[in-house]
Amino acid sequence: MTKSEKIEYRPVSVREALTEMKDLSEIMIDLAYSAALFNSRELAEEVLELEKRVDSLAYILDMNAMLAARDAEDAESLIGVTTVAAATDKISDAAADIATIVLKEVGIHPIVREAFEKVEEQLARAEVKPDSVFINKRVGDLELAAKIGVDIIAIRRGKEWIINPSEDETIVEGDVLIARGAPLGVDELKGLAEGKIKEME
Amino acid sequence: MTKSEKIEYRPVSVREALTEMKDLSEIMIDLAYSAALFNSRELAEEVLELEKRVDSLAYILDMNAMLAARDAEDAESLIGVTTVAAATDKISDAAADIATIVLKEVGIHPIVREAFEKVEEQLARAEVKPDSVFINKRVGDLELAAKIGVDIIAIRRGKEWIINPSEDETIVEGDVLIARGAPLGVDELKGLAEGKIKEME
Repeated sequence: MTKSEKIEYRPVSVREALTEMKDLSEIMIDLAYSAALFNSRELAEEVLELEKRVDSLAYILDMNAMLAARDAEDAESLIGVTTVAAATDKISDAAADIATIVLKEVGIHPIVREAFEKVEEQLARAEVKPDSVFINKRVGDLELAAKIGVDIIAIRRGKEWIINPSEDETIVEGDVLIARGAPLGVDELKGLAEGKIKEME
Repeated sequence: MTKSEKIEYRPVSVREALTEMKDLSEIMIDLAYSAALFNSRELAEEVLELEKRVDSLAYILDMNAMLAARDAEDAESLIGVTTVAAATDKISDAAADIATIVLKEVGIHPIVREAFEKVEEQLARAEVKPDSVFINKRVGDLELAAKIGVDIIAIRRGKEWIINPSEDETIVEGDVLIARGAPLGVDELKGLAEGKIKEME
């Protein structure tokens, strides 16, 4: 957490950066609430990983917005963009605050759990192990939504995040799947990813 | 905005306050994004109204948490609760930042609109006018989800907010309905609330 990470310069446009920041911040809130609900260190750690990504996107976005402003009118209109980006950054900070509480191991107060319990669909994290049936399958071919009522909303592959993966995305060993769905479906997804379940019912 | 409002002391428990703050902050984010997408002053103003409510809840929650802490252990476990509450407050601030940009009338930059466009379901605001068919109907009897694919997620009645109204809630003249649904259904809801449409198709 304390070691400073070099921010990779990638040619990300202001538009792409903002869209990704918005999507990530929404996922982070849901993940943070699920982390608190289940007192899950794993989910909390994913939130903190995502926060690093949002922070670098915020940096890239501000830099590109400055480079793009050629006159006062440009600058005024771009301030709207950087303000919205700063708002998504604030949301991701809030999610990280919740994740940090989970990692502190003081235990989640029952009041917090009760406030978050009403969420019908929950987020879960599943790591794809060597003998999982998911390996080398395309996301679309798994038909997870139809078969077990679960959506893969993000895949973390090492340090890379694939948000809202397309149907063509191929799952590889070691992928961390972030999924949303009803509790039963989510449990089945975990079993399948970890190789404990070999077939979908 | 600048006039200071007296915070009404209502007997709201820490649990109720936290649950309401969480629910409100989520609605505020969705409302703020819709406000930016449609450049809607009305939606932006609802966000700022909700922020006042979240601020008073934050105040009440902190006060009650302090009163509840009798020893160091209590205090430590309640810090988890106040941190989560502060996080929902931060999220509501972020929503208010976006709403403020919308109200500044500098115009929403196309990049912001594009980032928010992917949202399939949008939030809308509909005011119940004197000749609306909704008046004196129970929310459950309208069967809005089944008939037009729209959910009423909140009702503002003057300064009071009813979040996730129950089926038994009766709609009265002047209610402001905050609804979520596909664009076509949302348009129909507005027509019905404003008395321009007299029957559901």
